[in-house]
Amino acid sequence: MRGAGMDIALSLQQPIADRDSPILTGVPVVRRLGGCDAGEVAYVAPSTGRTVRAVLFDVFGTVVDWRTGIAEAAGAFASSHGLELDPYAFADSWRAQYQPAMRRVRSGERSFVSLDVLHRENLDDALRELGLDLGGFDPKELDALALAWHFLPPWPDSVAGLSAIKRGYIVGPLSNGNTSLLLDMAKAGGLPWDLILGSDVSRAYKPDPEAYLRPTALLGLNPGEVMLAAAHEGDLAAARKTGLATAFIARPLEYGPGAAATVAATGDWDLAGGSIPEIADLL
Amino acid sequence: MRGAGMDIALSLQQPIADRDSPILTGVPVVRRLGGCDAGEVAYVAPSTGRTVRAVLFDVFGTVVDWRTGIAEAAGAFASSHGLELDPYAFADSWRAQYQPAMRRVRSGERSFVSLDVLHRENLDDALRELGLDLGGFDPKELDALALAWHFLPPWPDSVAGLSAIKRGYIVGPLSNGNTSLLLDMAKAGGLPWDLILGSDVSRAYKPDPEAYLRPTALLGLNPGEVMLAAAHEGDLAAARKTGLATAFIARPLEYGPGAAATVAATGDWDLAGGSIPEIADLL
Repeated sequence: MRGAGMDIALSLQQPIADRDSPILTGVPVVRRLGGCDAGEVAYVAPSTGRTVRAVLFDVFGTVVDWRTGIAEAAGAFASSHGLELDPYAFADSWRAQYQPAMRRVRSGERSFVSLDVLHRENLDDALRELGLDLGGFDPKELDALALAWHFLPPWPDSVAGLSAIKRGYIVGPLSNGNTSLLLDMAKAGGLPWDLILGSDVSRAYKPDPEAYLRPTALLGLNPGEVMLAAAHEGDLAAARKTGLATAFIARPLEYGPGAAATVAATGDWDLAGGSIPEIADLL
Repeated sequence: MRGAGMDIALSLQQPIADRDSPILTGVPVVRRLGGCDAGEVAYVAPSTGRTVRAVLFDVFGTVVDWRTGIAEAAGAFASSHGLELDPYAFADSWRAQYQPAMRRVRSGERSFVSLDVLHRENLDDALRELGLDLGGFDPKELDALALAWHFLPPWPDSVAGLSAIKRGYIVGPLSNGNTSLLLDMAKAGGLPWDLILGSDVSRAYKPDPEAYLRPTALLGLNPGEVMLAAAHEGDLAAARKTGLATAFIARPLEYGPGAAATVAATGDWDLAGGSIPEIADLL
């Protein structure tokens, strides 16, 4: 990131882009960043031709290591109940219910429910798959286990990378997680988001277009001024379709050592790197 | 604020409150705070009998000095157009349109529009009141002036006070401002919110109950676990009616030196102080 601090009084006198009454259309045009170490930023995304103002992040897998976090919680749960299970396999099994559960909401088969509800239901399914009798558990203990999704550990580079990008850009999650899940995760892991708008604000799950467009509208930005950063190319493809800029971040360990993960981008994304700080350096 | 750092692994084993499947009801019960300097907090609000988890702040007048900010922007605008006006009187006149404009939305006379739209319309009204011909101004310059509401200066104690409370509680605005306005203000003024949910998320203006209850639901908290801090007793009264805890913060200079402002609380609020750090000390 380039440049010196941007003076607010100065930028107040900057010309507004060629558009009629942006406030009345709900899309302010002059957006200024401040704070003692604000950088003047001018990264223009090739795909949108617009200066990026906000970098929003996919969270599960891109910012946090869900597999390790869930395996640790599942391991502790298993120990306290004398269960023998492979905690990593259990994490994979629980996670495998994630897309099918959201698909039922996206298809309209069921109305919107928060990811907390889906995670809790999916936990029952994952336990049943092990042949366990759910009646043998106190439901409150299962609720507590499901809350492990609120407290997943960031990848080692995440906090430093987000902090660097935050100096010049708006940073926030763009996740299927609900607001309280993302908030707990941020407080516990020190993720320095400027704001948190969960999927329960847009009431839509990625890759539904509304999941990208509602946060963009609330930021008062045009889609081309918003960049999605994600480890999953399907997510990036959907974001690009709605007009967002894109950054690919490789997370080869998301599904564990040796498991398949997208380590090199196959799509033509605006940026690509192996960590969040690498993306910060490219902006 | 009391106590030492709260261990996440420890708190995972804490009992859940007496309620059935809180995740399935959408209200998680175990909420833990983390981070390197998280404090163990246990402030129980007398009015709700519940431990406060989040302190949400009214913004205009309570966290930022709207009158000085708007007067400065209006003064610069007047100078550049050779207008003679009293910038503080102009700020008061512009602000005087605030409640009537929101009332038309609250009453259903018009559908929800963001505060950016209302501020822009109210600017036209304030200029007309001075007998000025709006046709004499480039609409884009008026748009830029209206954006001054995005960049109001914090009161001198606000950043330190919010930072102190943030160590033990969730902090966020609970304002009639829209999300992008509150975001710009936070970036420019260094307000360390954990999250920002503007009035365009709830699509309701205070004192409508929905304006308090929608953010509370998105936080996954019961109303009694959320405290509103505000300089305006009408706001606090409405928050209390919806079940929130309350803190009064005196801001005697909100309307300028010598003008009427509530300097001593007349209501029986849970907490009362003369600054945000004073509230932090009481929590």
